[in-house]
Amino acid sequence: MKIQKQQVLESNKSSLKSHEENFDFLANKLSKNGHDVKSIVSKLSDFQVAIPSWALGAGGTRFGRFSFYGEPSTLEQKIEDIGVIHSLTQTAGAVSLHIPWDIPSDYAAIKEKADALNIKFDAVNSNTFQDQPDAAETYKYGSLSNLDKAVREQAIQHNIDVINIGDKLGSKALTVWLADGSCFPGQNNFQTAFQNTQDSLIDIYKALPDDWKMLVEYKPYEPNFYSTVIQDWGASLMLANGCGDKAYTLVDLGHHLPNSNIEQIVSILQLKGKLGGFHFNDSKYGDDDLTVGSIKPYALFLIFNELVYGMQNNPQNPDLAWMIDASHNVKDPLEDLIQSLEAIQEAYAKALLVDQNALKEAQLAHDVVKCQEILQGAYRTDVRPLIEKARLNAGGVINPISAYRSLDVRGQLIKERGKNTVATGL
Amino acid sequence: MKIQKQQVLESNKSSLKSHEENFDFLANKLSKNGHDVKSIVSKLSDFQVAIPSWALGAGGTRFGRFSFYGEPSTLEQKIEDIGVIHSLTQTAGAVSLHIPWDIPSDYAAIKEKADALNIKFDAVNSNTFQDQPDAAETYKYGSLSNLDKAVREQAIQHNIDVINIGDKLGSKALTVWLADGSCFPGQNNFQTAFQNTQDSLIDIYKALPDDWKMLVEYKPYEPNFYSTVIQDWGASLMLANGCGDKAYTLVDLGHHLPNSNIEQIVSILQLKGKLGGFHFNDSKYGDDDLTVGSIKPYALFLIFNELVYGMQNNPQNPDLAWMIDASHNVKDPLEDLIQSLEAIQEAYAKALLVDQNALKEAQLAHDVVKCQEILQGAYRTDVRPLIEKARLNAGGVINPISAYRSLDVRGQLIKERGKNTVATGL
Amino acid sequence: MKIQKQQVLESNKSSLKSHEENFDFLANKLSKNGHDVKSIVSKLSDFQVAIPSWALGAGGTRFGRFSFYGEPSTLEQKIEDIGVIHSLTQTAGAVSLHIPWDIPSDYAAIKEKADALNIKFDAVNSNTFQDQPDAAETYKYGSLSNLDKAVREQAIQHNIDVINIGDKLGSKALTVWLADGSCFPGQNNFQTAFQNTQDSLIDIYKALPDDWKMLVEYKPYEPNFYSTVIQDWGASLMLANGCGDKAYTLVDLGHHLPNSNIEQIVSILQLKGKLGGFHFNDSKYGDDDLTVGSIKPYALFLIFNELVYGMQNNPQNPDLAWMIDASHNVKDPLEDLIQSLEAIQEAYAKALLVDQNALKEAQLAHDVVKCQEILQGAYRTDVRPLIEKARLNAGGVINPISAYRSLDVRGQLIKERGKNTVATGL
Amino acid sequence: MKIQKQQVLESNKSSLKSHEENFDFLANKLSKNGHDVKSIVSKLSDFQVAIPSWALGAGGTRFGRFSFYGEPSTLEQKIEDIGVIHSLTQTAGAVSLHIPWDIPSDYAAIKEKADALNIKFDAVNSNTFQDQPDAAETYKYGSLSNLDKAVREQAIQHNIDVINIGDKLGSKALTVWLADGSCFPGQNNFQTAFQNTQDSLIDIYKALPDDWKMLVEYKPYEPNFYSTVIQDWGASLMLANGCGDKAYTLVDLGHHLPNSNIEQIVSILQLKGKLGGFHFNDSKYGDDDLTVGSIKPYALFLIFNELVYGMQNNPQNPDLAWMIDASHNVKDPLEDLIQSLEAIQEAYAKALLVDQNALKEAQLAHDVVKCQEILQGAYRTDVRPLIEKARLNAGGVINPISAYRSLDVRGQLIKERGKNTVATGL
Repeated sequence: MKIQKQQVLESNKSSLKSHEENFDFLANKLSKNGHDVKSIVSKLSDFQVAIPSWALGAGGTRFGRFSFYGEPSTLEQKIEDIGVIHSLTQTAGAVSLHIPWDIPSDYAAIKEKADALNIKFDAVNSNTFQDQPDAAETYKYGSLSNLDKAVREQAIQHNIDVINIGDKLGSKALTVWLADGSCFPGQNNFQTAFQNTQDSLIDIYKALPDDWKMLVEYKPYEPNFYSTVIQDWGASLMLANGCGDKAYTLVDLGHHLPNSNIEQIVSILQLKGKLGGFHFNDSKYGDDDLTVGSIKPYALFLIFNELVYGMQNNPQNPDLAWMIDASHNVKDPLEDLIQSLEAIQEAYAKALLVDQNALKEAQLAHDVVKCQEILQGAYRTDVRPLIEKARLNAGGVINPISAYRSLDVRGQLIKERGKNTVATGL
Repeated sequence: MKIQKQQVLESNKSSLKSHEENFDFLANKLSKNGHDVKSIVSKLSDFQVAIPSWALGAGGTRFGRFSFYGEPSTLEQKIEDIGVIHSLTQTAGAVSLHIPWDIPSDYAAIKEKADALNIKFDAVNSNTFQDQPDAAETYKYGSLSNLDKAVREQAIQHNIDVINIGDKLGSKALTVWLADGSCFPGQNNFQTAFQNTQDSLIDIYKALPDDWKMLVEYKPYEPNFYSTVIQDWGASLMLANGCGDKAYTLVDLGHHLPNSNIEQIVSILQLKGKLGGFHFNDSKYGDDDLTVGSIKPYALFLIFNELVYGMQNNPQNPDLAWMIDASHNVKDPLEDLIQSLEAIQEAYAKALLVDQNALKEAQLAHDVVKCQEILQGAYRTDVRPLIEKARLNAGGVINPISAYRSLDVRGQLIKERGKNTVATGL
Repeated sequence: MKIQKQQVLESNKSSLKSHEENFDFLANKLSKNGHDVKSIVSKLSDFQVAIPSWALGAGGTRFGRFSFYGEPSTLEQKIEDIGVIHSLTQTAGAVSLHIPWDIPSDYAAIKEKADALNIKFDAVNSNTFQDQPDAAETYKYGSLSNLDKAVREQAIQHNIDVINIGDKLGSKALTVWLADGSCFPGQNNFQTAFQNTQDSLIDIYKALPDDWKMLVEYKPYEPNFYSTVIQDWGASLMLANGCGDKAYTLVDLGHHLPNSNIEQIVSILQLKGKLGGFHFNDSKYGDDDLTVGSIKPYALFLIFNELVYGMQNNPQNPDLAWMIDASHNVKDPLEDLIQSLEAIQEAYAKALLVDQNALKEAQLAHDVVKCQEILQGAYRTDVRPLIEKARLNAGGVINPISAYRSLDVRGQLIKERGKNTVATGL
Repeated sequence: MKIQKQQVLESNKSSLKSHEENFDFLANKLSKNGHDVKSIVSKLSDFQVAIPSWALGAGGTRFGRFSFYGEPSTLEQKIEDIGVIHSLTQTAGAVSLHIPWDIPSDYAAIKEKADALNIKFDAVNSNTFQDQPDAAETYKYGSLSNLDKAVREQAIQHNIDVINIGDKLGSKALTVWLADGSCFPGQNNFQTAFQNTQDSLIDIYKALPDDWKMLVEYKPYEPNFYSTVIQDWGASLMLANGCGDKAYTLVDLGHHLPNSNIEQIVSILQLKGKLGGFHFNDSKYGDDDLTVGSIKPYALFLIFNELVYGMQNNPQNPDLAWMIDASHNVKDPLEDLIQSLEAIQEAYAKALLVDQNALKEAQLAHDVVKCQEILQGAYRTDVRPLIEKARLNAGGVINPISAYRSLDVRGQLIKERGKNTVATGL
């Protein structure tokens, strides 16, 4: 299924007048307060977030999975699904592949399809947390950190394969999420596991094309429940530094211990020029992988406040790879992703409204009350008209969820694909 | 110091036009969507939150305290401070006393002063977590739960004294926060401590006037770091039920283990008709006692969504005692309280915007996406014009922090009281 | 496979002398300190823990599962596996079935098999967290709490079916673990969900035979990540009380928020006569379902200290249903269970060594240091000789893990069943 | 008060025979299993832990403090108290001073007193989390990280003063615990605060004598409740690396987010040669500062397992500065410290019993069950006879708590000092 330009225009008709009233009123008010509304809208239009190929079907838990209808069962269909989201929102212009779930059979055809939908190939993801049917070695006791050299070599080679696949598609980054760790005290020698991981990463790093990045993800627990080799940003940064200048830390919002101050981590990594990527989701208890902004939208805003600060003040830090990494257990995956994209744009828009000069002044004066007023002033602003305008300018719809429903996208997908398809992967 | 009517009018002059534009635009939009704006504003005006007498001076931690200037050093001055806040915000029309820190020397004079400032006496608080200079028994090893009968009797009598003091001032509720517990395994017999607490509470309950309530607070830890006798809502409810119909559970936002779903607790207690009071603050790590809404404003909104639902659907539950219970370590306490009051009103206003009928329908249809759209739709609305209008209608100022500063309240207080006063209490 | 008496005797030969030396030395020391060693050993021999039928195969996470060899694929084989564990340890004399995974095809044959291995049928477990292939209704949005009456009725009927199956086998309890909840704010109406759950439980309760118990489990999160209907002991107890005298709360060690004081919960429930069952496991982060005692053995001891106290002082509380509820992701499931059983016996033995009279005295004297000395004195004792003796007396082996390995049980099972069998269920 | 040699001998008389029986039995068993008991006992004797000068009086919380009797009120008396503990336990042969609470008036006299009691001066601690009466600048909004240069300079100079004081006493390390951070979003610019801290630390580092170390402590929260500049080991290590080879990370057990795997942090820091010091205490909820080993003794053992591994395998890591950092709210501080020392020795002794070769082999074989058996085998051993022997060999008592009580130390101290003295400091 493909959304037509005409459908977009049709969808916007009924709400255009109301949008314009709201936008004009807000823009006028913001301009009076010294904001460059045009520039803000333009930044919002430019902001693109990758959709991972595994997020287009229903997710589940260890207790089971309730499947959804009309799920994509091929890479082509996954890209079509992203195309639908991108046509509506104009913010999902990239896909992040997971190997071996998404190995293209025809590279040229896949690239053509993605090009036609204006979708780029962002970071590629390797998988050494599951055994593949034909694998010689098992990852049950670790992969890049394994005491067994043969296992490490298989895992290293897999990552190199992933780089090669990504290279053919135009990707420029490899994301390594290493699930390795231990379930019980004594199972792992922490030092050996860490050293092996460092050595394995260096071997992978050597295979990295010059214009590529390696993004090292961290996570405190799950699927291992006693220790994880790359347990926090400190470990990730140490390993990235051990590889070289093209290796960076990747932050996933859900991969932190309770009560972590994530915005500070993000900020310090940018100061050091070592924040390479960011995975969006939300959570209340652990790595719950819920819709972005559904649980702690203010924390998301505070993180974006640091990201915006970094983009403006840290030339030493590269452009970031943005991706949504959520699991869709009870919602239509495409609607879930649309809600996530809106929450991201909202947090970004509000962060762009923070008056950085006034904030700096208040900080210098130790005026804590004023600092809070400045942040909350931006946060309390209803920025939906700005986001609508950014979408409109880029050729998207004013209200993506409404449009998705009135166009009956899911109904069409079920008609095309049948009810009981299952997305590959998890 | 006392804010004059004229000062309020003066303060509103410059921002009145802008407020009216914003309010009209918002009210118009909300009315179109079926909201009864007048009723919402009226509810906001009616909502009153008690200020505890101990929150008017600087707070601290076990590592020390940085004092603030012009703090009130008598009960009269504390009530004057609340008078200032109430004049500006029109939402702080009550004081919550802490005994023995606030025993009036002249009841009639204190009542008169409070009446003149339109301030009521809300729940009174007892203190059995500290020893008083002249006390016969020590609370080092517990008070109402102590194995030693003499200690329990002293603590019971103290609570009865508190009731009597409150009675003379027009209070209608006693709040019991029991710090009792243990720092080490084995120190306490859990069952005996619980049974003693139940018996002590029953003795206090017997002294309760007919039109009074007893509010039983819970907290998982601090100042005891292994166990707390009333550790959660389950324990509090059990004890309240053991006392009788006038005993209720009191929820303090900061008194929960990490990641607790507090809105569900609030909801179930209302269903059972047993939620008696609510203490506002915010926190990231433990009982941090930060400004309301400064860390997790969406969680506060979700809680208010349940409170509003309960006020509309649970006649079995009584009116609640609302209070701010925060510690002001780095801000001017009065400004801190004003920011808290605004955050409370904001959450309340947004909860009043939730379309309960549409939500119910979406729930029946298992339309999870729509449910979220409804809640977020309300939350994303910029409700500041509604709050300003509510304050204006009640005789307050449009922007309390600005007014507080332009009137140089703190400067006046320092002039009147001197720099190095210290608020009684903690 | 079945362990023969002769194999047990053979296995004990080599370590018997060393065991006797150790036991004599310890028993002598303990007797001198006033302990009744014979009685302690006898209590250890009597203590029996149920093995759930789903714990005999490899477990996994939402990221996948690494299977193990020789797993049981029928109910008969599962019971045989428990028979192996019980022959060696003499503490696993019960099985807890999960319906629909374990519906017997021939009741008489299954009972006979279990009888022959000296295994009883403990509490039966219902499953309304997954859809069955032929189910008319889906549990995707809840079961007993669902807004849809047809779904609730299906779930109620399933629980009644489970009771009937259990009844034919001699079970005397139904365990209800209700996964119902919501993943997003707004998805559920907390009050309606709670009320529906109460009504559904009452309907199930009505079908309960007179000599049965209903055990209501609670859990704060997972598989739902925003709210869970029965989120804590307070909610569970409220629902149990709403059903009647035969309904009790069941505590699972892993089902608590971070830092919960579980021993206090256990203690207060016993005081009220409402603790019905206990599920053992261990965890560091969430409901990790690790081997019992592998992470926090002292916490397990403190819990046992309360359980022993309750068994001795709370006649109002019934005998408990004990069960291991762990997931075996990286160990041989049978070895994992054996390690769990040993950890349970160890904690129980140490709790039996606590001098309750001395502890009471020290508590009365507020001698916190002494209280700790008493608990730690018991905990620091090496009680392995007592456990070995208890096993020997009952006909088991001195060292179950060694015996399991030297008898090459797993090798036998693979020979019998083949390598790539998969246990039914999760 | 000073414990006499004769008193020690007297104290040991009654329990000597029983100790010898227990020790011989255990030593014999351990030797059979290949352990070098003599070497273990000797290592235990050599292990010395510093007592901080502020831990000799009663601690408290922000809710108040219950004082204790006979507290030391001068530095001399504090050292005498440590002398008492050291005479009994022979493991507290060092004091860690806190400036400005412990500035000696007569250096020679203090050194002489400490020498006579066989007490060394370990790391000295600076204090920039409180304002001193005569200070020109306030630390209310930070010290080494403050935006105000004058404040930073005052804090830097204070640290240099502390080095100079320590130098005169023979200390060889400065511990910097930096409480700086923020209570509210926006209050701090994370990057500026971090950069300022780095610059300030470099200035302090320059004043460090050649044979000194700088130990950089980290802590996630408290007394600041939104952000802390040095929030975790990653930040500490980054700052230490920014200073130079003599700067190290210091780990305090209580300074971690819930569920942190501390042993892994300790292990990786040793691998990198950057673990400089360790502060012992225990906790259930936050930085509770409870008696060592009173809540999670197994976690302490696992940490010691890594420390022992590091001491044996990481020559790149220096000798560590060991210190107890607990708060004594409900126990006699001296008894509390004795219990902590015993718990430390117990964990150390058990870690020394871990068969590192067998563990390595089991790890290589991915025999997770065996790995656990090895660790638990060591942990379950009752090592009290080894600790008693180590104390005896060094001239201490068999049972320090008993001896302390039978010698009526506290009674003596009250007689000497009076009841209502208050220890300086917190």
